[in-house]
Amino acid sequence: MTATPPDIVRSAYLELVVSDLAASREFYVDVLGLVVTEEDGREIHLRALEEFIHHNLVLREGPVPAVAAFGFRVRSPRELDAAEAHYRALGCGVRREPAGFRTGVGEVVRVLDPLGFPYEFFYDVAHAPRLTWRSDLYGAGAIVRLDHFNQVCPDVVAGAAYLEELGFKRTEDIRGDDGVTYAAWFARKDTVHDTALTGGSGPRMHHIAFATHEKHNILYICDKLGALRRSDAIERGPGRHGVSNAFYLYLRDPDGHRIEIYTQDYYTGDPDNPVVTWDVHDNQRRDWWGHAVVPSWYTDASTVLDLDGAPVPLREREQASEMDVTIGADGFSYTRKDDTARGFKVGEQL
Amino acid sequence: MTATPPDIVRSAYLELVVSDLAASREFYVDVLGLVVTEEDGREIHLRALEEFIHHNLVLREGPVPAVAAFGFRVRSPRELDAAEAHYRALGCGVRREPAGFRTGVGEVVRVLDPLGFPYEFFYDVAHAPRLTWRSDLYGAGAIVRLDHFNQVCPDVVAGAAYLEELGFKRTEDIRGDDGVTYAAWFARKDTVHDTALTGGSGPRMHHIAFATHEKHNILYICDKLGALRRSDAIERGPGRHGVSNAFYLYLRDPDGHRIEIYTQDYYTGDPDNPVVTWDVHDNQRRDWWGHAVVPSWYTDASTVLDLDGAPVPLREREQASEMDVTIGADGFSYTRKDDTARGFKVGEQL
Amino acid sequence: MTATPPDIVRSAYLELVVSDLAASREFYVDVLGLVVTEEDGREIHLRALEEFIHHNLVLREGPVPAVAAFGFRVRSPRELDAAEAHYRALGCGVRREPAGFRTGVGEVVRVLDPLGFPYEFFYDVAHAPRLTWRSDLYGAGAIVRLDHFNQVCPDVVAGAAYLEELGFKRTEDIRGDDGVTYAAWFARKDTVHDTALTGGSGPRMHHIAFATHEKHNILYICDKLGALRRSDAIERGPGRHGVSNAFYLYLRDPDGHRIEIYTQDYYTGDPDNPVVTWDVHDNQRRDWWGHAVVPSWYTDASTVLDLDGAPVPLREREQASEMDVTIGADGFSYTRKDDTARGFKVGEQL
Amino acid sequence: MTATPPDIVRSAYLELVVSDLAASREFYVDVLGLVVTEEDGREIHLRALEEFIHHNLVLREGPVPAVAAFGFRVRSPRELDAAEAHYRALGCGVRREPAGFRTGVGEVVRVLDPLGFPYEFFYDVAHAPRLTWRSDLYGAGAIVRLDHFNQVCPDVVAGAAYLEELGFKRTEDIRGDDGVTYAAWFARKDTVHDTALTGGSGPRMHHIAFATHEKHNILYICDKLGALRRSDAIERGPGRHGVSNAFYLYLRDPDGHRIEIYTQDYYTGDPDNPVVTWDVHDNQRRDWWGHAVVPSWYTDASTVLDLDGAPVPLREREQASEMDVTIGADGFSYTRKDDTARGFKVGEQL
Repeated sequence: MTATPPDIVRSAYLELVVSDLAASREFYVDVLGLVVTEEDGREIHLRALEEFIHHNLVLREGPVPAVAAFGFRVRSPRELDAAEAHYRALGCGVRREPAGFRTGVGEVVRVLDPLGFPYEFFYDVAHAPRLTWRSDLYGAGAIVRLDHFNQVCPDVVAGAAYLEELGFKRTEDIRGDDGVTYAAWFARKDTVHDTALTGGSGPRMHHIAFATHEKHNILYICDKLGALRRSDAIERGPGRHGVSNAFYLYLRDPDGHRIEIYTQDYYTGDPDNPVVTWDVHDNQRRDWWGHAVVPSWYTDASTVLDLDGAPVPLREREQASEMDVTIGADGFSYTRKDDTARGFKVGEQL
Repeated sequence: MTATPPDIVRSAYLELVVSDLAASREFYVDVLGLVVTEEDGREIHLRALEEFIHHNLVLREGPVPAVAAFGFRVRSPRELDAAEAHYRALGCGVRREPAGFRTGVGEVVRVLDPLGFPYEFFYDVAHAPRLTWRSDLYGAGAIVRLDHFNQVCPDVVAGAAYLEELGFKRTEDIRGDDGVTYAAWFARKDTVHDTALTGGSGPRMHHIAFATHEKHNILYICDKLGALRRSDAIERGPGRHGVSNAFYLYLRDPDGHRIEIYTQDYYTGDPDNPVVTWDVHDNQRRDWWGHAVVPSWYTDASTVLDLDGAPVPLREREQASEMDVTIGADGFSYTRKDDTARGFKVGEQL
Repeated sequence: MTATPPDIVRSAYLELVVSDLAASREFYVDVLGLVVTEEDGREIHLRALEEFIHHNLVLREGPVPAVAAFGFRVRSPRELDAAEAHYRALGCGVRREPAGFRTGVGEVVRVLDPLGFPYEFFYDVAHAPRLTWRSDLYGAGAIVRLDHFNQVCPDVVAGAAYLEELGFKRTEDIRGDDGVTYAAWFARKDTVHDTALTGGSGPRMHHIAFATHEKHNILYICDKLGALRRSDAIERGPGRHGVSNAFYLYLRDPDGHRIEIYTQDYYTGDPDNPVVTWDVHDNQRRDWWGHAVVPSWYTDASTVLDLDGAPVPLREREQASEMDVTIGADGFSYTRKDDTARGFKVGEQL
Repeated sequence: MTATPPDIVRSAYLELVVSDLAASREFYVDVLGLVVTEEDGREIHLRALEEFIHHNLVLREGPVPAVAAFGFRVRSPRELDAAEAHYRALGCGVRREPAGFRTGVGEVVRVLDPLGFPYEFFYDVAHAPRLTWRSDLYGAGAIVRLDHFNQVCPDVVAGAAYLEELGFKRTEDIRGDDGVTYAAWFARKDTVHDTALTGGSGPRMHHIAFATHEKHNILYICDKLGALRRSDAIERGPGRHGVSNAFYLYLRDPDGHRIEIYTQDYYTGDPDNPVVTWDVHDNQRRDWWGHAVVPSWYTDASTVLDLDGAPVPLREREQASEMDVTIGADGFSYTRKDDTARGFKVGEQL
């Protein structure tokens, strides 16, 4: 690599194609409480309560549910040049779009990256009121911040090399004794991640995660979904992650796009922040309380679109699958290494 | 029934036979933080932090893990006469034991009740320091109070009639369109229950429940079990109950006895407190977030002992089983009545 | 006393006369989130989210802000006869009013009690939906239950004797070495109190208290008041009480009526529940963290009305005042008995 | 300024001189739960539970309670050269000390900065176990991270210019219509601050702040201090800051050094993070709930030492004092601008 990579500040927004804009608005605004910065009949721009840039999530109505863009903010306008040069050197498709191409956003550099994901980089962006002090607008499940993306790709080792070259710092990963890397987490800001790679057929988006202040906010979101008789939108959790030690909940939106609600990982801003490696057979790696990961969480993910809006074709994962090696007849997980006690968990019993 | 039933104040203590006293002490004292009031090599008397009577739980080492007594406090010494008369009129085995028969407890009336459970009634009891103001002794998962028992019996309707005659007030139940009652909850104090009946082969003890102040206390208990690499002691939850609306967690102790940690049900002290009836097919009745109930939660329970310490033989349940009618090939559960969407839950996928 | 006192279940509602119904509605409904059961241009009937009886608070517009009734629920209709007889035997003014005298309430027995307070007793009452499961209606500061009243009267000893004869159980009190009782707490339901007596010129109402589930709910109410630029409605707290060990907040409504928001006291339902006596000079008795009690909290209270709606004249307290003996030039409070260190508290410095 | 300033990662440790090492150990370890990395009879090295570097706080016994060093971590070893050059260009005293000068730390650049504070910069440092997953070691008031310092200096404008030149980003400040700046906050990591300047006689240390995960952790610390009869160590709070919107508590250690416990400010990592300016007369700026700031909080602060360990002489503040312009006869604060209502707060009444 010859070009200096762009100085990325953080994961900033996701553009989501949804099949029914009204249904998605109801989910993200009425149920989850994201704030509408701007909307028309075609697109809705949403932000979390403590965000000050124009949006963290764009919902755009379209024929095929998919992810159209993973938006990363860079540190200055000249980093757009760095982004363009970096991806051209990588031989990727790159399009530089003028201000206004994205509502509320200045010039953007759009790329289809080596893994097949539609990344885009921007610096200039309209500011919106940061509602940090507007507790009167906070519901009991208040979402305050976009935290990270999670991407599915077939080869986590190759993907990690690409992200690390792009300036991301690895914070945690899951590996096996067989030398296989099953997943890895990468940060730019001071949290455990701005994005992560999950091994599987890809490129696909695994989920987008938003943060709350406290754990009870996440529990309330579950209670509210129960009250609305929409508990079947809860795919997994709430629970405590092993990786990141965050408290989590996974929901599925009306199109099946996966949303994580997340709180309380740890500070990772030091240059020598210790990388945590988990054994793929450690049953507490994905849920610290040892609960089974639901199969759909491993198998389902969102289509991503190329720069022309066409679905990016999938490549299969060739290495071992985390689900296969940990669940079912050929898999195994332990609570205590070298201890074969099975316990009472639903995953052991169903 | 001719005799006036005894005026019961609340569920007060459980005597548990455990196979390894040291292992049980480690679980209840070191992990869960119950307070030792008194102990010797044979028995340990434990109480919750805000309790002022001598104990809420007796651990006694014995050959067969079992429940030897469900202790209920009555309002005055003369209620012991009422208890004796009531159970004699019912034709039950009754033994009146002098003060000191139970460590820390005055005279007790022991009965093997019509359902086969070893109930015992007491008024006089030694007081122990109520540690309400001793926050310095509180861990992050502090258990403050015994909340209730839960008993398995074959015929919930008959069992309910017996408990209601004994002065318990029904607060909630689970029924089917088929006319079957699957479970019911009964209170003396101002909470949703002092005991409950769960349909199944019985008599057996389903669980004993302790209360914390807040939900994060329960989450911490899970985190701690994870840290101790004992997450396999978590059988079900944490979650939000439909019935009672309490926040819950089910653990299994070293002998497999089931312990619930529970918080925040609602006030039920009014005489016309509305009874809440749940449809057995409502998937939110047992978990408001719609998560599957693990089979062992339905099938496993603790042996109970008669007044001579012998296991009480089981009678099979003849009516439909809640597990069978809600899970698996012949069962079904709905999130929204008349809506067959299945959602992403582990119970749907495994 | 010859007549058996009525069997009181709990404190159930308060009728509050307010000077501007719209302003009070805005405070209790829009800010605090109480639920409107029924309203017209003259009266608003409000309840907490988990209440199932028609109301816990009646706001009635009138010329002089005052308390018109302290409502207690009794265990059965025949307890109204007991109430009538009890108060007639005490020589009090008693009026028995037919169903409908109070909106949503059946027959009531209204008395002006020996301390000069307008108590009223009822059994029949319209039920309203208990919103326990309607988390979608819960704000972040959700108020779930009426907890207690607090009354100011000149002679706490005499007042306590009256309440204990009426069947209330003393749970805590504040006394001095001088033999003076400064305040006392009294329960019917299983909490620390249904009402309390605070020494001072009376009869007046000190406050009415509502419960939340958790402490963060109370903190949110403060945050919201800040966001609304109404933080000057916060009179005292949030903090931890010594007495009751509950977490608390005192607000003043638009007429200056005092509202407490309260959570997590302890179970008191046993007949021999230990009474806790606090030394009036213990600086942690009213605030476990040792913060000064604001003078208005001692001096201000609401007028109460007699059965004809006229303000009840005040009698002065003759015994020592808690404020005088604990604050200022002639008072003292200690953190550790016999230790004169003063610490950094605002009360020590301003 | 010609030299490029050092690239500072974050505030990392404080060296505190204490008069009684055992008393300070009891406070920081037994009461607050900081973790001992290493100790001898002269010094104790402590860290927060989620820290991975050797220490966040050094307690060293000495004759005069004081702060001997504010430690900042830089991004790489070569940034030590930048630090040295930067401060030499500023004409400051600079000492470069070899590895081992500080226990657990590599080479350090020590300076007495233009404001008179003993700053020191380091990169190499011993790692210690990050206890993020060791919930079994977490008390109910678990402190997880050092968050920031706060320094008192006479001229906030000059001090801010120095810090901004050093690469700190201003996030918030307090100003008056008179053009005076009373305080300002400065960040390197993604939180509201790594350090702040409070106007007053200086140089002195106002406080050091540690973070918890949730608000209830802070409330518990108060409860525990009450239980230990040490509530007089609580100087101010708990409360919600206006500035930073964090939840806070101020304690005083056995020598009077001020410790803040702090949680939940907001993300500030973007280059154009909006600066929030507060009016000095806004009564919610320092406490969002409008509670009075105790005078000692304005007047008391810790001595700082020069590079030889001698107390740095104080310079008086010449501009208006925040305490004077907001409290007392000549000061004023408003809840709503142009509204003179005074409310019920203790600061208004005492």
